[in-house]
Amino acid sequence: MHIVITGGAGFLGQRLLARLLERGELDGQAIRRLTLIDQVEPQVPTATDVEIVPLAMDITAPRALDALLAERPTVIYHLAAVVSSAAEGDLDLGMRVNFDATRALLEGCRHHALAETRLIMASSVAAYGGDLPDILDDMTALQPQNSYGTQKAMCELLINDYGRRGLVDGRVLRLPTITIRPGRPNAAASSFASSILREPLNGEEATCPVPTDLALFVMSPGRVIEALIHGAEVPRTDWAPFRAFMLPGITVTVAEMLEALGEVAGEEAVSRVRHEPDEAITAIVSNWPARFDTAKARRLGFEGDRNLREIIEAFIRERS
Amino acid sequence: MHIVITGGAGFLGQRLLARLLERGELDGQAIRRLTLIDQVEPQVPTATDVEIVPLAMDITAPRALDALLAERPTVIYHLAAVVSSAAEGDLDLGMRVNFDATRALLEGCRHHALAETRLIMASSVAAYGGDLPDILDDMTALQPQNSYGTQKAMCELLINDYGRRGLVDGRVLRLPTITIRPGRPNAAASSFASSILREPLNGEEATCPVPTDLALFVMSPGRVIEALIHGAEVPRTDWAPFRAFMLPGITVTVAEMLEALGEVAGEEAVSRVRHEPDEAITAIVSNWPARFDTAKARRLGFEGDRNLREIIEAFIRERS
Ligand SMILES: NC(=O)c1ccc[n+]([C@@H]2O[C@H](COP(=O)([O-])OP(=O)(O)OC[C@H]3O[C@@H](n4cnc5c(N)ncnc54)[C@H](O)[C@@H]3O)[C@@H](O)[C@H]2O)c1
Ligand SMILES: NC(=O)c1ccc[n+]([C@@H]2O[C@H](COP(=O)([O-])OP(=O)(O)OC[C@H]3O[C@@H](n4cnc5c(N)ncnc54)[C@H](O)[C@@H]3O)[C@@H](O)[C@H]2O)c1
Repeated sequence: MHIVITGGAGFLGQRLLARLLERGELDGQAIRRLTLIDQVEPQVPTATDVEIVPLAMDITAPRALDALLAERPTVIYHLAAVVSSAAEGDLDLGMRVNFDATRALLEGCRHHALAETRLIMASSVAAYGGDLPDILDDMTALQPQNSYGTQKAMCELLINDYGRRGLVDGRVLRLPTITIRPGRPNAAASSFASSILREPLNGEEATCPVPTDLALFVMSPGRVIEALIHGAEVPRTDWAPFRAFMLPGITVTVAEMLEALGEVAGEEAVSRVRHEPDEAITAIVSNWPARFDTAKARRLGFEGDRNLREIIEAFIRERS
Repeated sequence: MHIVITGGAGFLGQRLLARLLERGELDGQAIRRLTLIDQVEPQVPTATDVEIVPLAMDITAPRALDALLAERPTVIYHLAAVVSSAAEGDLDLGMRVNFDATRALLEGCRHHALAETRLIMASSVAAYGGDLPDILDDMTALQPQNSYGTQKAMCELLINDYGRRGLVDGRVLRLPTITIRPGRPNAAASSFASSILREPLNGEEATCPVPTDLALFVMSPGRVIEALIHGAEVPRTDWAPFRAFMLPGITVTVAEMLEALGEVAGEEAVSRVRHEPDEAITAIVSNWPARFDTAKARRLGFEGDRNLREIIEAFIRERS
């Protein structure tokens, strides 16, 4: 089969590539070809028996994906996106990349009659907002309070409708906050969710800008990648009536994160976290939902992390 | 003030025009000008002290509304739409009229810096779908099972986001099933909801295609128009955090509709309704939600009909 990954140079795109190559197959079919698309040419490994094609391409360009869709890929992972702060800072950019490019991709699939192609998109917990209940479930409204979440929610609706009409096999997974992301702290409000574990594990100092009783809904990068794989393997009919839902993250407080850090890496690691409350960050993240009943995802066989210890141990294993 | 009505030749557009002229003011300001836009030139009354401008115009044409927006209208009622069956039959048409034209209108407001202009759109109960709870509320997800509902839900998200960003004063009202619509039965699955009352009241026969225990969520045309008026008068800040919600319809069964018909017009009227179960229609309408807790609409002062009797009596009064 031929798999396309948009956003193939990104964090999840690169990890998904590695995992697909490791597996060699998806849904019981050998992977013959992998096309990775990104603004910058994605890095790809050299020697393997899979044909890997990296493409530098702006997916917002007119008919950008047309030649590729004409080759009738079996699975498309649509991961290209501008993140939350960029979409908030530039409405046009966010609409173009996060919404219009998704619509163009759907139209491309329709035009090339790719009714059987599995189109898998990553949505986000940022699509939730408004007067949320304590525990969200599969029927909780998406009332986003940011443009990124708005664009993701609009894509969900459109992918669901194209899927319902049989124009493509559309599938959307809403991702929890991902921890532990490798790399450096960044400007994202959620940066601390990785930072307060990653930096101490690397022997460095970290800053915790939120109260320790703050709860988050998290998933490890490894589990997210497994969910993307599983998302291509669940039968099409199981996705109806609405082809988007939340993945089974786990609810953890910052205190529990630090406790697990201590268990795995000792109290010295925990002492590397300085507590410097930041009201702006706290105000943003305390509106994020932290408790979900993810019944649909579980019914369809998606699996979350078992606990924080497992998340931390996986990070240490993968780092080495 | 200058009020624009898109879809001004339509059922609600014409009634809204009549009501606005009757009132002469909106939100305490005298109405000086009314612009009605539709594919076909809207009918407008001749003599009055308000300047009424009917415009024949396709709102999907590029920059269709540009000249009008340059005049900085105070309130825009965006009622132009292709209905459910047309949007289902022609995806491109539905996307163009129901979604792209709304987006263009939002962009036009942004371009002309109409941050204070109230943009009021009519959404629909058709935006609901999926595994709905018995009683829906303001946090029930929109998981539409038709393209019309999908397009309306996408407009809600976009209007909310432009409103949140302060680019326009965006407001969306989700309308219940409207009964009693004047006119003739049509191809809509909901046609019977008006037909089984209207035809007997007019001394004609009607067909009821659904079981009498079927429940519907309904609102009279008069109350819908009052809601559109009130929608321009509620303070802007009251609409946050999500600028779209369901109007307070009332839940009625077909049996209750026929009972009220008997009370107002006698048993002879009821006997004009023939019961001819239609499985196709029953299948469609039994998925429509019938019970809502419309807390937000009620908190903002929107009012529903008191009962079926009132709905029927209003129809008789307006007919004469
Ligand atoms: N918890 C969450 O809510 C959450 C977390 C992570 C990711 N996501 C979603 O998962 C997906 C992947 O996330 P990630 O962490 O790998 O992000 P990332 O930023 O690392 O990767 C996204 C990639 O898209 C590319 N891209 C942006 N605009 C493009 C364009 N016009 N043309 C081509 N490529 C373009 C970027 O260059 C980048 O490499 C995204 O859709 C993101 O929104 C959601
Ligand atoms: N219960 C419900 O769910 C419900 C009920 C009624 C109305 N609504 C919504 O309320 C609004 C008004 O409904 P209505 O009953 O008056 O419908 P209607 O069909 O009578 O009026 C809609 C008008 O829009 C016009 N129109 C369509 N495409 C156009 C275009 N490209 N350019 C210009 N004009 C165009 C049509 O000519 C028509 O006159 C619609 O947005 C509809 O979706 C929802």
